[in-house]
Amino acid sequence: MNHIINKKRLGQELTREELSKSFGGYVDGNIPDYQMSALLMAICLNGMTEREILDLTDLFIQSGEQLDLSIIEGIKVDKHSTGGVGDKTTMVIGPLVASCGVSFIKMSGRGLGHTGGTIDKLESIPDFRADLTPEEMIDQVQKIHLAIADQTADLVPMDKKIYALRSVTGTVESIPLIAVSVMSKKIAGGADKILLDVKFGEGAFMKTKEEAEELAELMKKIGDHYHKEVRTLITDMNTPLGNSIGNSLEVVEAIRILKNEEHNVLTELCIELASNIVSMGKELSLAQARKEVETVLQDGSAYQKFLEFVKAQHGDLARLEISTKKQNIVAHKAGILKAIDAFKMGELSVMLGAGRKTKEDSIDPKVGIMIKKQLNDEIQVGDTLCTLYLGDQEPPEGIEEYFEIE
Amino acid sequence: MNHIINKKRLGQELTREELSKSFGGYVDGNIPDYQMSALLMAICLNGMTEREILDLTDLFIQSGEQLDLSIIEGIKVDKHSTGGVGDKTTMVIGPLVASCGVSFIKMSGRGLGHTGGTIDKLESIPDFRADLTPEEMIDQVQKIHLAIADQTADLVPMDKKIYALRSVTGTVESIPLIAVSVMSKKIAGGADKILLDVKFGEGAFMKTKEEAEELAELMKKIGDHYHKEVRTLITDMNTPLGNSIGNSLEVVEAIRILKNEEHNVLTELCIELASNIVSMGKELSLAQARKEVETVLQDGSAYQKFLEFVKAQHGDLARLEISTKKQNIVAHKAGILKAIDAFKMGELSVMLGAGRKTKEDSIDPKVGIMIKKQLNDEIQVGDTLCTLYLGDQEPPEGIEEYFEIE
Repeated sequence: MNHIINKKRLGQELTREELSKSFGGYVDGNIPDYQMSALLMAICLNGMTEREILDLTDLFIQSGEQLDLSIIEGIKVDKHSTGGVGDKTTMVIGPLVASCGVSFIKMSGRGLGHTGGTIDKLESIPDFRADLTPEEMIDQVQKIHLAIADQTADLVPMDKKIYALRSVTGTVESIPLIAVSVMSKKIAGGADKILLDVKFGEGAFMKTKEEAEELAELMKKIGDHYHKEVRTLITDMNTPLGNSIGNSLEVVEAIRILKNEEHNVLTELCIELASNIVSMGKELSLAQARKEVETVLQDGSAYQKFLEFVKAQHGDLARLEISTKKQNIVAHKAGILKAIDAFKMGELSVMLGAGRKTKEDSIDPKVGIMIKKQLNDEIQVGDTLCTLYLGDQEPPEGIEEYFEIE
Repeated sequence: MNHIINKKRLGQELTREELSKSFGGYVDGNIPDYQMSALLMAICLNGMTEREILDLTDLFIQSGEQLDLSIIEGIKVDKHSTGGVGDKTTMVIGPLVASCGVSFIKMSGRGLGHTGGTIDKLESIPDFRADLTPEEMIDQVQKIHLAIADQTADLVPMDKKIYALRSVTGTVESIPLIAVSVMSKKIAGGADKILLDVKFGEGAFMKTKEEAEELAELMKKIGDHYHKEVRTLITDMNTPLGNSIGNSLEVVEAIRILKNEEHNVLTELCIELASNIVSMGKELSLAQARKEVETVLQDGSAYQKFLEFVKAQHGDLARLEISTKKQNIVAHKAGILKAIDAFKMGELSVMLGAGRKTKEDSIDPKVGIMIKKQLNDEIQVGDTLCTLYLGDQEPPEGIEEYFEIE
């Protein structure tokens, strides 16, 4: 192992056997944490060649089970977003594409750090079941074209173990390691085609557009290798996505979009993503696909699909709860709203109880933040910038500073 | 800690507090191995600033006790060699400078990997005591100007712990970390002036002359900071140092040099190093110092000093043993001897039992290698290239290949 670490430190290419010995050995418990973290840091700083990336993706996939979705008719499209603050797109896109007849089977994660997880959001609906078996997921998709469930433990266990180590050793921000992590899960998940929503900005892992493009390019190459069509969208995550952050609040916002009651940047992003998925799943032009998506949004069938999906997974929307303990944050200066700090808003929501600082933390689904002003709005002193929905935690001072007013 | 690792990964400078938190926390057991090894790898690849290096050296020194040698009269000079195969210079230099009246108090290490340690060599002398207390060392130096003892545990414990982790995580070859490790021990050791013998080549840690010069420059800067005069010699370690490798064999070779019976490259290096120490210790010109050193070598007083030193540390030279089980390695081709692979010869000596692969291995003092040919000698087929002195281990095939004959 020392020899393998030294090679990577010196910028040399590792063989497939060396990657297998180190990463596989780590998962098997034969390689200690402290050697793996040194290797991960050397990878962060010296990168990986395309050959190494493809080999490592394959080792990740081979480390666990792979889903076989061939029993489901038609082209199955999966979607991945690299995560962001207030990102509730999956809850909106799923019903949109399913009601266009495209099968959407998605395994999602839970939130950690300043970004939330789709499963946490859906679980704010009382009795919602996220722990579907692969058989239950496939069965549900065959019936209603839609299932969203928790990542099963048997899929890519290597990713689980390596990610846990990366998150505590300053080795998260590596484009090759992120690409391997995302693509191995997508490929093991069994979809035919993959749409990637790669976010950049303050609220995302990739801070610049260039990094996001590099990551997208790399993930496309991995898709090519497995003969899976991959489309990528590069989207801005400097501002929180939509008006709400927090679990129940985000479900409510998703419902408003699906009911066609909300028309903003988030609505447009959801339509854009859904149109791409329908275009890939039904082999239509993007313009044709967009027409279908707009139709199901306007005629209410997307919203009906959402209700059908929640019911199929035992959720009881009638009992969805939002905290009644509210506090308004008001502007201390007048001007034009130039920016909202997505990263700080994400951290604030975690502080209020909407997210986890460590994997062991529990979540309060009722708390969160509702943003009341849009970018470029004219702000007067005393205007409400956002409303906090509070649980047991008191909010910190100075939240109005997260809003940049000029 | 994650934040500190991320800073170094991004090439940012760490504050003294951050260095203390991470390195100090590791020694205290508050920072786990896997975080420290990630930080060490980031340091290997992104380097350290001069300020960071000085702060870290200071933290290393402060982690344990410091020797106070002020009770010993005159200027105390310490010497450090960055290690090499067959390096027995300390055993020769000590008596040379002590018999010139310069106090030489040296703490040495044991061997690990392909290079041997001075203490292991001296301990091949039956009953030799290397575990002197600081008081015993000072007392002995006051009487006979010379003591060579094992590194005490209380001096720079941080180095001990960090080095153990570096040796198994591919993070040994870092010029800043080597400089901090060497200089913290020299400064904690309490000498007034320091002579550094920085080796480069196949048999050394620094593979090129440029790296050796960079390391020397850095160690000089650290010395300046502590107002300690530091002289450096850059010496070639592509060929093993002297004719013997192995513990008893090296003691015998040191004696032959001190008896003025051996005149080769090693003799010249010992005179050069000793002259520098005498020049520093007595504030003489190098030429004057050299005259003194040559005198004590020729008139036998250096050899007498060696006998006095061994006796003071309870060693019984009469019982020094060399294996009687010998095997000659002969040349398979004729030509001029162009090179002897120091690294492979070092590894061979470990294989025969003269060194340690892991810290737990024990050493057989009687085994080793005696080299019979010098560089540029004319070799005939069948000539003996070297003689192996064997213990329980059988030698491998192909040893004649370590000798490059053209």
